Amino acid sequence: MKMAQLSAESDTPVATIKFYLRENLLAGGERTSPNQASYNTGHLRRIRLVRGLIDVGGLSVAAARRVIEAIDSELPLPETFEIAQRSVSDELDPTAIDSSALARVDGLMAGWHVSANNPGRLAAASVLETFDQIGHVDHRGWFAGYAAAALLVADADLDEVDALPDREAKAEMVVVGTVLGDALFSGLRRAAQEHISLLRYPYPNHEITEPTKE
Amino acid sequence: MKMAQLSAESDTPVATIKFYLRENLLAGGERTSPNQASYNTGHLRRIRLVRGLIDVGGLSVAAARRVIEAIDSELPLPETFEIAQRSVSDELDPTAIDSSALARVDGLMAGWHVSANNPGRLAAASVLETFDQIGHVDHRGWFAGYAAAALLVADADLDEVDALPDREAKAEMVVVGTVLGDALFSGLRRAAQEHISLLRYPYPNHEITEPTKE
Repeated sequence: MKMAQLSAESDTPVATIKFYLRENLLAGGERTSPNQASYNTGHLRRIRLVRGLIDVGGLSVAAARRVIEAIDSELPLPETFEIAQRSVSDELDPTAIDSSALARVDGLMAGWHVSANNPGRLAAASVLETFDQIGHVDHRGWFAGYAAAALLVADADLDEVDALPDREAKAEMVVVGTVLGDALFSGLRRAAQEHISLLRYPYPNHEITEPTKE
Repeated sequence: MKMAQLSAESDTPVATIKFYLRENLLAGGERTSPNQASYNTGHLRRIRLVRGLIDVGGLSVAAARRVIEAIDSELPLPETFEIAQRSVSDELDPTAIDSSALARVDGLMAGWHVSANNPGRLAAASVLETFDQIGHVDHRGWFAGYAAAALLVADADLDEVDALPDREAKAEMVVVGTVLGDALFSGLRRAAQEHISLLRYPYPNHEITEPTKE
């Protein structure tokens, strides 16, 4: 298809598509004349992916380029995970994090194989440090519940990756699941909190609107 | 204690404390003379909490004020949860979200009591809509795994709230758990992903640095 059709089918302005081409977020089309190129459904899918990563996932253009490159590479999946994780994580300096908080996170992850510089390990330790600072020092049982649930979620993530047929599809799932999975989980967690808090703390005037039914 | 000591103990500049006072994030001290007030450990704890919410949790001053007011109110806990959830959620227009995505989220939450306008329900539906748009249409099993884990996490959240002695402590836990819990969970999820992906996709040159031990 030509650029105009690619723009119409992807519901994306031509200027945005040209920006993606310039930024190496999208491979060029097949030249059909000096001024024209032809694009295929692979380009269409990729435009939708890039928009999802940037517009919904909140990735910067540079971070989106790194994860797109990882999808198109031959990197082993654990390295693809690492690149995807870094794209959605603040860069933390391990030496700036309280060593007791790091040791407690490692205690929660006993038996897990996790690199010292895994961005999630550092982020979790930094949250534990904040709990200490605000005087919430004894949440060990709560943290352990989170670690158990995180393992279930990671297992579900990998089940979904395993079910896909080839490396590119698996790598795309790693990226999409990492970038959109946080938002999905925190959304479901908030809904579950309402459900469980109403079960435990019922009060008469709370209006529940029945969810939509298909 | 006087303002200078409050500043030293909380490691917070006097100007920041005065800003918190002006913005009603912190109650005034007890006047001891026209130009001086006396502060107690309650003020100290509150300054640390406000800093945690704003500096680490990323809340705006307005959002921090709303959750602080909710802690100090007599609102039932489910309403306190609602205020805490809104403080960390984008405002989404339910009519702008695809009704099939909303119906699928409601299917994942079958049996849960969740308001139609719960910010998590809308956020989760919006993520499902994005998956559709990028051509990831068949992740039903994965989503169901997330919903089950979200219920576990919400149960752990409420266990922690229940264990606290009084309404103010419970309400503070609701706020802190909601604001910092997302970052804790996503951190642990990333570490668990590394662990599970290495179990399932081992590769020889990946270097695991042993975590610190206490």
